[in-house]
Amino acid sequence: MDTLTLKILHRAIPPDCASEFRALFGDRFITSEAVRTHHGTDESPYPVCPPDAVIFPHNEDEVVQIVRLCNRYKVPVIPFGIGSSLEGHVLPIQGGITLDFTEMNRVLAINAEDFTVTVQPGVIRTQLNDEIRDTGLFFPIDPGAHASIGGMTATRASGTNAVRYGTMRENVVSLKVVTAQGDIVRTASRARKSSSGYDLTHLYVGSEGTLGIIVEITVRVYPRPETISAAICNFPTLSDAVQSVVEIMQYGVPIARVEFMDQHAVNAVNRHSKLGLKETPLLLFEFHGSKTGVQEQIEAVQEITQGNGGMDFQWAERPEDRTRLWHARHNSHYAGLQLRPGSRSVATDVCVPISRLADCVTQTAADLEGMPFPYTIVGHVGDGNFHVQMLIDPDKPEEWQKSEAINHRLVHRAIAMDGTCSGEHGVGIHKMEFLKAEHGEAALELMRLIKHAYDPNNIFNPGKVIAWEA
Amino acid sequence: MDTLTLKILHRAIPPDCASEFRALFGDRFITSEAVRTHHGTDESPYPVCPPDAVIFPHNEDEVVQIVRLCNRYKVPVIPFGIGSSLEGHVLPIQGGITLDFTEMNRVLAINAEDFTVTVQPGVIRTQLNDEIRDTGLFFPIDPGAHASIGGMTATRASGTNAVRYGTMRENVVSLKVVTAQGDIVRTASRARKSSSGYDLTHLYVGSEGTLGIIVEITVRVYPRPETISAAICNFPTLSDAVQSVVEIMQYGVPIARVEFMDQHAVNAVNRHSKLGLKETPLLLFEFHGSKTGVQEQIEAVQEITQGNGGMDFQWAERPEDRTRLWHARHNSHYAGLQLRPGSRSVATDVCVPISRLADCVTQTAADLEGMPFPYTIVGHVGDGNFHVQMLIDPDKPEEWQKSEAINHRLVHRAIAMDGTCSGEHGVGIHKMEFLKAEHGEAALELMRLIKHAYDPNNIFNPGKVIAWEA
Repeated sequence: MDTLTLKILHRAIPPDCASEFRALFGDRFITSEAVRTHHGTDESPYPVCPPDAVIFPHNEDEVVQIVRLCNRYKVPVIPFGIGSSLEGHVLPIQGGITLDFTEMNRVLAINAEDFTVTVQPGVIRTQLNDEIRDTGLFFPIDPGAHASIGGMTATRASGTNAVRYGTMRENVVSLKVVTAQGDIVRTASRARKSSSGYDLTHLYVGSEGTLGIIVEITVRVYPRPETISAAICNFPTLSDAVQSVVEIMQYGVPIARVEFMDQHAVNAVNRHSKLGLKETPLLLFEFHGSKTGVQEQIEAVQEITQGNGGMDFQWAERPEDRTRLWHARHNSHYAGLQLRPGSRSVATDVCVPISRLADCVTQTAADLEGMPFPYTIVGHVGDGNFHVQMLIDPDKPEEWQKSEAINHRLVHRAIAMDGTCSGEHGVGIHKMEFLKAEHGEAALELMRLIKHAYDPNNIFNPGKVIAWEA
Repeated sequence: MDTLTLKILHRAIPPDCASEFRALFGDRFITSEAVRTHHGTDESPYPVCPPDAVIFPHNEDEVVQIVRLCNRYKVPVIPFGIGSSLEGHVLPIQGGITLDFTEMNRVLAINAEDFTVTVQPGVIRTQLNDEIRDTGLFFPIDPGAHASIGGMTATRASGTNAVRYGTMRENVVSLKVVTAQGDIVRTASRARKSSSGYDLTHLYVGSEGTLGIIVEITVRVYPRPETISAAICNFPTLSDAVQSVVEIMQYGVPIARVEFMDQHAVNAVNRHSKLGLKETPLLLFEFHGSKTGVQEQIEAVQEITQGNGGMDFQWAERPEDRTRLWHARHNSHYAGLQLRPGSRSVATDVCVPISRLADCVTQTAADLEGMPFPYTIVGHVGDGNFHVQMLIDPDKPEEWQKSEAINHRLVHRAIAMDGTCSGEHGVGIHKMEFLKAEHGEAALELMRLIKHAYDPNNIFNPGKVIAWEA
């Protein structure tokens, strides 16, 4: 695929700088082809773009040493979790050193009484839940990938539980970050609320490694609900399903999860996860609460879905059945890829106010009719967020162009509806072109002022989120 | 009281600048003594500090004109809601022009389907609830004063409902702000979530007018609960009451409000609001939900309070009884003042992780024993936030010094417990001295970089939150 190229402005590591790194890190300053290639690859449609070197730091003091050297020599430094980002976030397009946080993967503190947990950035979300299982608590944020908490913080990630529990925006309590000067800053205390100074925590959440390096994250955790119940409801049409969600939200049902899949997505997960789901648009629900609370939620939701042509609920009563269903939903990205072996996936990520969701989804489905590639639509529709996954042939530039045209139309439709180009994937490289339409030039200038002030040598993941110059 | 003085570095309005303002605003460029005095007064213990002039802007374009002129002439500009801030936030200590938002008080849009409402900064919180009453929705944030939404946004305010609904931090969806250059920036769309660029919304929430002027606010609103129930529970000791709250939170009860009053606060509200509450430490509860949901909450809470020596619940069943109770709680600041006619109130505002709350409150109560002034302790204890109100004689400097010593000890105790010097009142002038201990110098430098970048002429509410120079 030659249609998606990277503008590369490579800043080579000066020999003196490389010598200093070798003196400090020895063999841990890795420049082997295989390791560099791995860290020049993500799940975006961009070509491989390797860093000049990779370090797996062991602790925050090492990160301070690395950042100080990089800042002195003006060498880019790119934080890397597991490489599951979708928009080119971790590609070192100006060269430099990738910091892989795999070896900073400890859970540092579990404050069960305060519902907070403090972790290093390399902790994987599933690992975190395994490590706190005995406390009766859980961490709800679950993007499709088995992402790291550091990467999820950096992209302001969410997932299927956001409708009830919020996203990383609502669930990061405090951060430790390394600044360009090599200082370690803690952005907030563990108090539940504070009016003490500017909100540095939210500034770093979603900054995609461009303002500093996150070395510690304190997140909120929640009591495991007494009762969990999951069900599937099929609908004759896409708009019936979406309209049901709109009404459920407007009725104020405290639903934990409500996920949409179109018939193509259902077909894909049936094949990939060997399920026998009826292949029409469907909603996948999960209810959390006390036994009677869950029963009340179910009754309200059933009434609404029946009023919109929904068929009978199919229940996943046993924990293993629920787990199987949610695994299938989480794997829908990979399931989609199997619809067309050898294809590459292009995923959209708009989010609109719930009142505009049905229009946005149906207009987008109309756009997709007659496209030469398979696609699926899935969505965290309780938040107004949905994804089109387009499976394009990497050898056919015209398919790439058509998928880009769909994405452009969709983003501008969402912005016109007072929505956003990205609900949860982030900007990376691929969405930078949309920020002006969404935010306006004056807002971008406010963002740029922060970038310039925090990173005067443009070392932190340069070329991402916001252009250095207007 | 000569013990709390203001360091004033007055920057006079240049005559040319005043002429330009007069040409644009005529008589609306107000310099009368009475109006200036009113706008040099808040509820802090500082002396009156009037601005040089006051303007009541009519719309955002006028705010743009004012800011552009102020920036050109380097004249301070101070936004003013109703003047209920407690730490000197709105005192023009470098002179300049106060913008009173009383005449920008319209509700601009009610998007009931999306649970958002868009308002001008001068809208009062009670007015907002009156205007949306017909929709079945309500706005939960309720600081003690009848504050403006603009002021509440600027101070990151909260109140009695925060334990269930969050603070302004969680409930501001989007802002329009006027920058130093006179651009109007919208900080976010109305989508429920977004990963599109740096989080400008949260940067302005809590910035206390120091980074720009907020001219429009979109907030979240909520369905009015089907069932509301309120009750009072008395306890033999302060620590029994606080320990009950800790257990309620840890049990995960989705309680809407849980407010603590010590015996002195109960005495004050009894006198002020003519109530006959039993004068021991007590908790004031409110439960929101479905009928059965509320019943479940009540049973859980009763079991916990009984286990901690709590007496029988006294119910406020009728809406008018509930309203009377909450009015009394909201007026506790004014009730406290009446404990000592002619006194001035000094209020603390720490917030600590809930696991440290009982220790923090009991150690503080011990500090207060034997003080020569009356005091009360009230708190939004579900958040770990409580206030000591000390009623000092303005003619006795030694009382002021003792109250300041209490405040210092309390703030450093809270910080040592991983808490904050301010849960909801904000920094203003009075808490600036604590920020270094709480955040560290490197974090303050990150805040200062933003202040310098966004406000190069230091016109936006100068001398507040963070010192211009380290």
